Amino acid sequence: MTRTVYVNGDYLPEDQATVSVFDRGFLMADGVYEVVSVLGGKLIDFEGHMVRLKRSLSELAIANPLSDDDYLAAHRDLVARNDITDGLVYLQVTRGNPGDRDFAYPPADTVPTVVMFTQSKPGLADAPAAKTGWKIVSVEDLRWGRRDIKTVGRDMLYRRMVQDGAVTEGTSNNAYIVKGNTIITRQLSHDILHGITRAAVLRFAREAQMKVEERAFTIAEAQAADEAFVTSASAFVMPVISIDGAPVGAGTVGPVARRLREIYLEESLKTGT
Amino acid sequence: MTRTVYVNGDYLPEDQATVSVFDRGFLMADGVYEVVSVLGGKLIDFEGHMVRLKRSLSELAIANPLSDDDYLAAHRDLVARNDITDGLVYLQVTRGNPGDRDFAYPPADTVPTVVMFTQSKPGLADAPAAKTGWKIVSVEDLRWGRRDIKTVGRDMLYRRMVQDGAVTEGTSNNAYIVKGNTIITRQLSHDILHGITRAAVLRFAREAQMKVEERAFTIAEAQAADEAFVTSASAFVMPVISIDGAPVGAGTVGPVARRLREIYLEESLKTGT
Repeated sequence: MTRTVYVNGDYLPEDQATVSVFDRGFLMADGVYEVVSVLGGKLIDFEGHMVRLKRSLSELAIANPLSDDDYLAAHRDLVARNDITDGLVYLQVTRGNPGDRDFAYPPADTVPTVVMFTQSKPGLADAPAAKTGWKIVSVEDLRWGRRDIKTVGRDMLYRRMVQDGAVTEGTSNNAYIVKGNTIITRQLSHDILHGITRAAVLRFAREAQMKVEERAFTIAEAQAADEAFVTSASAFVMPVISIDGAPVGAGTVGPVARRLREIYLEESLKTGT
Repeated sequence: MTRTVYVNGDYLPEDQATVSVFDRGFLMADGVYEVVSVLGGKLIDFEGHMVRLKRSLSELAIANPLSDDDYLAAHRDLVARNDITDGLVYLQVTRGNPGDRDFAYPPADTVPTVVMFTQSKPGLADAPAAKTGWKIVSVEDLRWGRRDIKTVGRDMLYRRMVQDGAVTEGTSNNAYIVKGNTIITRQLSHDILHGITRAAVLRFAREAQMKVEERAFTIAEAQAADEAFVTSASAFVMPVISIDGAPVGAGTVGPVARRLREIYLEESLKTGT
């Protein structure tokens, strides 16, 4: 089955889903994105993603071209047309195609580009990796430090980032360690992505009477912790069993990560839209 | 006249020049670019841009899909087809379209995307601004410091960048000050773009018996300098007459910047291809 992709209001076969080479998303990475998970045909934490989308657009002064209801309808259309049970909907909004390339912002009437597509991931919630845990390696957070390479934007080289010795975040996730009854994760700031899943998981953790400490931690502290895990909209809660070759805790999936994953999936399925 | 644009070997009318929404250039800003100036129908410092292009591609482990001769032929074709006397050729190479979105690098046989287009800029070398000079403002170099905004790449908000009080570079240019007979510009490192025009201008300056100091300088030092200027492939040597409201030197275009611009344009026209 050919996948159907949404481009600016049209539903197109995936091999006909194109944007202009003059789109500022292509020329200048001038856009934002969200990834909403689908479990059992339901959209997980859709509202949270809409809140962050609007914040991101507003920070970049890109006009929001659609209402939340429009986004929701398109998400549901794509899930239905592509017969997605488990998977995700990727959404990208760019500053649009002004017809040519110019660093200056385009005329105010330039229409933002909206692209949405699905990915089917059967058994997403039961990923085998969630049972065995991830082994991860740390890499200096150089993403933004290479102004000498003439890239059109960030590069996606790194699995997990460390800056000044403190863990910031994974490539597309937030990072946590567990010590006793306390979950430690970096505080929100301009340094980390404000994870939708992060917010939900911390809420569930507090409801389960766990202590949550929002502060930076080091790789050494993570290696010496009882457990470690990461969260993201599509990996949910993913246990980490080894960092840079050193086992975390017993080197197996810990009870806190396992339990938080269960709670997150249960609650998400209940409240999915 | 409709502009003709190069996309992966095809010459297309600009409104039909598209790339897949799954192109990693669109989804992840996973690509590099170069801008070659055209003066009197000739390509300025084409070879220098090829050297940097290959370096950038190699740093990102993107296979170079074309030979220097292929790039040159396409540049010349576009200049001819679009009847460009003065202007530029923009070139972008991305990691291509693997057919779906995945942070992991695509299969090695994924073909990189090559896009080239021209912009006509009659009288490019005689820009009125070169006679009056630019007034610029400094902005903290926050480009890479906002991990909390979910952008698909860098944002293009800033005209001139300062980091830890030291001038790094302009949005798309290198920055210089002149004190006595000495030209001061930041040394090459991962912190600044390795400007093609920078290399040529420093060579001409040394040939003209000027002293060149490659080191960082502050905004205050720039404001107290005799002259300031920036260089880029399309602005060439552009005098700066005021920084954050304070005049530089006499607040008019200085003799060093004026002379370096003349030499650069003369030499570039002689050696253009």
